[in-house]
Amino acid sequence: MTQIKNIGVFTSGGDAPGMNAAIRAVVRTAMYYGIEVTGIRRGYDGMGKGEFVTMNRKSVSNIIQRGGTILKTARCDNFRTPEGRKNAYEQLLKHKVDALVAIGGDGTFTGAKVFGNEYDIPVVGLPGTIDNDLVGTDFTIGYDTAINTVVDAVDKIRDTAESHDRLFIVEVMGRDSGLIALRTGIATGAEAILIPESKTGLEGLFNRLEFGRKDKTSRIVIVAEGDDTVGGAFEVGRLVQEKFPNYDTRISILGHIQRGGAPSCMDRVLASRVGAAAVEALRDGHRNEMIGLINGEIAYTPFEHAIKHHQGIDPNMIKLVEMLSM
Amino acid sequence: MTQIKNIGVFTSGGDAPGMNAAIRAVVRTAMYYGIEVTGIRRGYDGMGKGEFVTMNRKSVSNIIQRGGTILKTARCDNFRTPEGRKNAYEQLLKHKVDALVAIGGDGTFTGAKVFGNEYDIPVVGLPGTIDNDLVGTDFTIGYDTAINTVVDAVDKIRDTAESHDRLFIVEVMGRDSGLIALRTGIATGAEAILIPESKTGLEGLFNRLEFGRKDKTSRIVIVAEGDDTVGGAFEVGRLVQEKFPNYDTRISILGHIQRGGAPSCMDRVLASRVGAAAVEALRDGHRNEMIGLINGEIAYTPFEHAIKHHQGIDPNMIKLVEMLSM
Amino acid sequence: MTQIKNIGVFTSGGDAPGMNAAIRAVVRTAMYYGIEVTGIRRGYDGMGKGEFVTMNRKSVSNIIQRGGTILKTARCDNFRTPEGRKNAYEQLLKHKVDALVAIGGDGTFTGAKVFGNEYDIPVVGLPGTIDNDLVGTDFTIGYDTAINTVVDAVDKIRDTAESHDRLFIVEVMGRDSGLIALRTGIATGAEAILIPESKTGLEGLFNRLEFGRKDKTSRIVIVAEGDDTVGGAFEVGRLVQEKFPNYDTRISILGHIQRGGAPSCMDRVLASRVGAAAVEALRDGHRNEMIGLINGEIAYTPFEHAIKHHQGIDPNMIKLVEMLSM
Amino acid sequence: MTQIKNIGVFTSGGDAPGMNAAIRAVVRTAMYYGIEVTGIRRGYDGMGKGEFVTMNRKSVSNIIQRGGTILKTARCDNFRTPEGRKNAYEQLLKHKVDALVAIGGDGTFTGAKVFGNEYDIPVVGLPGTIDNDLVGTDFTIGYDTAINTVVDAVDKIRDTAESHDRLFIVEVMGRDSGLIALRTGIATGAEAILIPESKTGLEGLFNRLEFGRKDKTSRIVIVAEGDDTVGGAFEVGRLVQEKFPNYDTRISILGHIQRGGAPSCMDRVLASRVGAAAVEALRDGHRNEMIGLINGEIAYTPFEHAIKHHQGIDPNMIKLVEMLSM
Repeated sequence: MTQIKNIGVFTSGGDAPGMNAAIRAVVRTAMYYGIEVTGIRRGYDGMGKGEFVTMNRKSVSNIIQRGGTILKTARCDNFRTPEGRKNAYEQLLKHKVDALVAIGGDGTFTGAKVFGNEYDIPVVGLPGTIDNDLVGTDFTIGYDTAINTVVDAVDKIRDTAESHDRLFIVEVMGRDSGLIALRTGIATGAEAILIPESKTGLEGLFNRLEFGRKDKTSRIVIVAEGDDTVGGAFEVGRLVQEKFPNYDTRISILGHIQRGGAPSCMDRVLASRVGAAAVEALRDGHRNEMIGLINGEIAYTPFEHAIKHHQGIDPNMIKLVEMLSM
Repeated sequence: MTQIKNIGVFTSGGDAPGMNAAIRAVVRTAMYYGIEVTGIRRGYDGMGKGEFVTMNRKSVSNIIQRGGTILKTARCDNFRTPEGRKNAYEQLLKHKVDALVAIGGDGTFTGAKVFGNEYDIPVVGLPGTIDNDLVGTDFTIGYDTAINTVVDAVDKIRDTAESHDRLFIVEVMGRDSGLIALRTGIATGAEAILIPESKTGLEGLFNRLEFGRKDKTSRIVIVAEGDDTVGGAFEVGRLVQEKFPNYDTRISILGHIQRGGAPSCMDRVLASRVGAAAVEALRDGHRNEMIGLINGEIAYTPFEHAIKHHQGIDPNMIKLVEMLSM
Repeated sequence: MTQIKNIGVFTSGGDAPGMNAAIRAVVRTAMYYGIEVTGIRRGYDGMGKGEFVTMNRKSVSNIIQRGGTILKTARCDNFRTPEGRKNAYEQLLKHKVDALVAIGGDGTFTGAKVFGNEYDIPVVGLPGTIDNDLVGTDFTIGYDTAINTVVDAVDKIRDTAESHDRLFIVEVMGRDSGLIALRTGIATGAEAILIPESKTGLEGLFNRLEFGRKDKTSRIVIVAEGDDTVGGAFEVGRLVQEKFPNYDTRISILGHIQRGGAPSCMDRVLASRVGAAAVEALRDGHRNEMIGLINGEIAYTPFEHAIKHHQGIDPNMIKLVEMLSM
Repeated sequence: MTQIKNIGVFTSGGDAPGMNAAIRAVVRTAMYYGIEVTGIRRGYDGMGKGEFVTMNRKSVSNIIQRGGTILKTARCDNFRTPEGRKNAYEQLLKHKVDALVAIGGDGTFTGAKVFGNEYDIPVVGLPGTIDNDLVGTDFTIGYDTAINTVVDAVDKIRDTAESHDRLFIVEVMGRDSGLIALRTGIATGAEAILIPESKTGLEGLFNRLEFGRKDKTSRIVIVAEGDDTVGGAFEVGRLVQEKFPNYDTRISILGHIQRGGAPSCMDRVLASRVGAAAVEALRDGHRNEMIGLINGEIAYTPFEHAIKHHQGIDPNMIKLVEMLSM
């Protein structure tokens, strides 16, 4: 067992609901094992600038239900340079931080991997991103909350769609991944989804609209932000309107509301479990690994592997969207 | 007391949460007084096409909590022509409808006024629009729900704004009116609001950002859809970014989610009260009037008056936004 | 204009959503006018014990959306004694607090009235209670949020009632007042309401159930906590079950969830307006008054009057419950 | 492949959010494969009474977001007798139903098993219960929504607990299982949970309260309905108050709100997946099996096995409650 005395914890990249629950779990578990915790504000950027704050049990009171991250987050170009990382390491030394828990996504772990290779400091990561696009965990922290927010928003839009017999093109987050679009497409009874991973694209959509049930009084199409079929929801909307002038077509970009809000129960439980496991992993000598949850069990995945692969799309679920909205 | 035997009820214009509660109140109150009710689908358009359905107590069961309108709504160019109105009147005669309750906004009442003048049929209106831009009622049906939806969305956006130290420009509905922006601006602690009714505009906003408190970690600016200071939220965002390059500025257009969702308690109560009062007003011989609620009492406003005036903005409340966000 | 230099603000009695928005408004408005603010924790109890904290603009950042009260609240027997009040006054002198804003209900203002008469310190009050049972304001801070919480809960219960053809007796808060029961009864389409102010009581309820529509698939009865028709929801349920053994009758006590949660838009706006007005009232020499909002305008009511009278029940609204649920 | 022509679908036992999504998936998938669907109202009871309704694609429009079950549900003693089942079978024959999908929990599958053994009709089941107490699926339909409802309610209660420095005993559903209590206990940061499966009981709770952190300003204890440590939340509350008279202890029974509401995204996806899989399973010759989802894959579990075993409690998660609330 490694003798770790002071764990630094930080959030990096886009914020996600449940990050606070994860911070709380790291802090409280460390305290439980007699380890000190240093909060690092604004991710790698704050690490380089020495934005360090001593955490105790009370610093994480009453935050489990809060969206965002109390440690704040930032993107950091500086950390991409060897000087930036050297600087960050010196700050850690100065504050006697001898291990790190990095909460974030792909970019966060890329930084962590390089840093963990260059300097002798154990780093583990927690999957905190609404996109769910990491391997090594069934779900990422924030994904469940985000899809509930989308579903709630589309339920509202459906009211208007029904009342006006309209077709709505709804754009959801997911720059490289259609996972938000996929589950919310099923859950909102969407006519079709457009996602980066599928290539049926516009043709498929047009077919659905042309040969689908005619007595429908509203139609929803979910488009992932990163879908490049034709270049975004507005362009999809334009083409649908052109091809189906009799449909009253509208576009809605859900945008940033998808990142915020009180985390769902599952996101809090996930964050709590992997947060506690991260501290235990560091004590057990793990390093350069992401701590996730697979089939209900804690799973350890080398950063190397987590950032090179992405969670794929189950083709049966794509088919399900279509079959059930008929 | 006029002997009314069959009331036609319809919704027209943009849908608003609480319209179903209003329909329910009209139907059940009419039944209570032994009057029959005919539901007219798709507003004036359906009236001309004879989309009539007989309503009973059960047809409005379990709808008080539903957004949208079970009678559907539509905009109708045809009704603007004398032939269109003649056609509609003939349909009403054919179905023995001898009075009308029109639920909608400005455009709905303009049609109702012309129609009520041309043909001998009593028409009363209920204020159903999320914009709250009618005189003759303190609040319109749907406004309270819409502002709660906005506040809930901005609370979520605030999580991200706080976590990333960002400034968010949030566009809310209100093509001709800043009333949604005004109350949600106060309720979300916005830095500033841009609304059609105020002329402090961009200058005022820039001043706030320049001379405001520097230790703020997030900033929200609410822009009404109809604000023409510089032409929309995107343009406001561009100019802010240009002038304050050190701010991390983002834009969010809330869009159609503002129209849907289960109505708030107040919207259901308002809709129930004015819905019941509309039937009683018709029995008492009222016509060509909108039925609203002012200071907790039922109020009757001639269509003429309701459509020519708009609810103004209390300058003290504009000042409040600024004073409290300092 | 009185020269006030340091306003003490506190919350007392049961907590209510929007109290934080009121605290924020008091603090920020005072700062705006160059007045210092002292936060007094735990109401009159903390006042006597000297639990004082200096407030600034930042102390009330990011609290407008939070339920509860950051200043905490408590009931205090000590303040009912002359010694208790003397002690409190000495603490105020010691901390140079020369005016008070008391946020709470009946009990809070009773204390404030006595204190304001005994000692030469201006006190104004803000109506903060979910019960809405004060005169001098159309609505109290917290009422709108509470009725939305009730409506949301009963909507959920209705799902089960519908699925199982059940009758639900739902108890809502309101120890001396049926105002929560009244509006939520209308908004949830309840069969009947039992409230302290009405005397139709059990007989009326039995009549509704006996002679009401037979094809109903679910029934909701709302009982105010303080209704003494037969002594509480459980007893009502027992008697209904006895008289109508063929109904599948269930009871649900909503309880404390009604006090919490993020305040609604209207509660935040109300709290912000009266909070700002309280500071301005003190500057203008007001004292021993509650600051409320009547017909959209700030209203000043002597404590004496506010605590001796209660908002009554509009009989038309009671009739509405019955008429619309038929 | 069995030639199935007409699938009967019904819901039985307590209702759960997502049952409608499951019905929709069964109906639409059957239609997709050219199979007719008969909706059976009120479970086994309606089956015996011949409450059959022909379903088509449109009968399940716009229900995916609704709580409860459009087919209604009931408990049925009659079906426990051979005559009751004979009667039901004759009704199925009469309506040409040649396969069944039963949506419910333990009791539902017990009935299905006996029936499937006695009569030559293939029956498969879908796990629909908020309790999550079945083996053969990671989660049951309704569980995710229920735990989110609990967490949302406890977040509200926490506001009051914090404001008044109180300890709240909150009772959640789960007659035989602590699974709702377990996850919501973690997610709400509860001090302790009392569940049927754990035997640390009152002693453990008292220890937590005695030796726990003293600077806490609120405490939540979650008690599962079926916990028999001392006989219910009220009794727990009484004993805590007796032992810790300085705590301001309150009790809240969440009750029936836990069963209703719009299903969460995950519940809708789960219901959609297993609903579609149920039809495909019948086509493939499956019978007397429950269709669940394990590790993201469709899983088939004999009724026999599903009803004799219950999902256990992970002791690490019990420890987590304690560790993280310190």
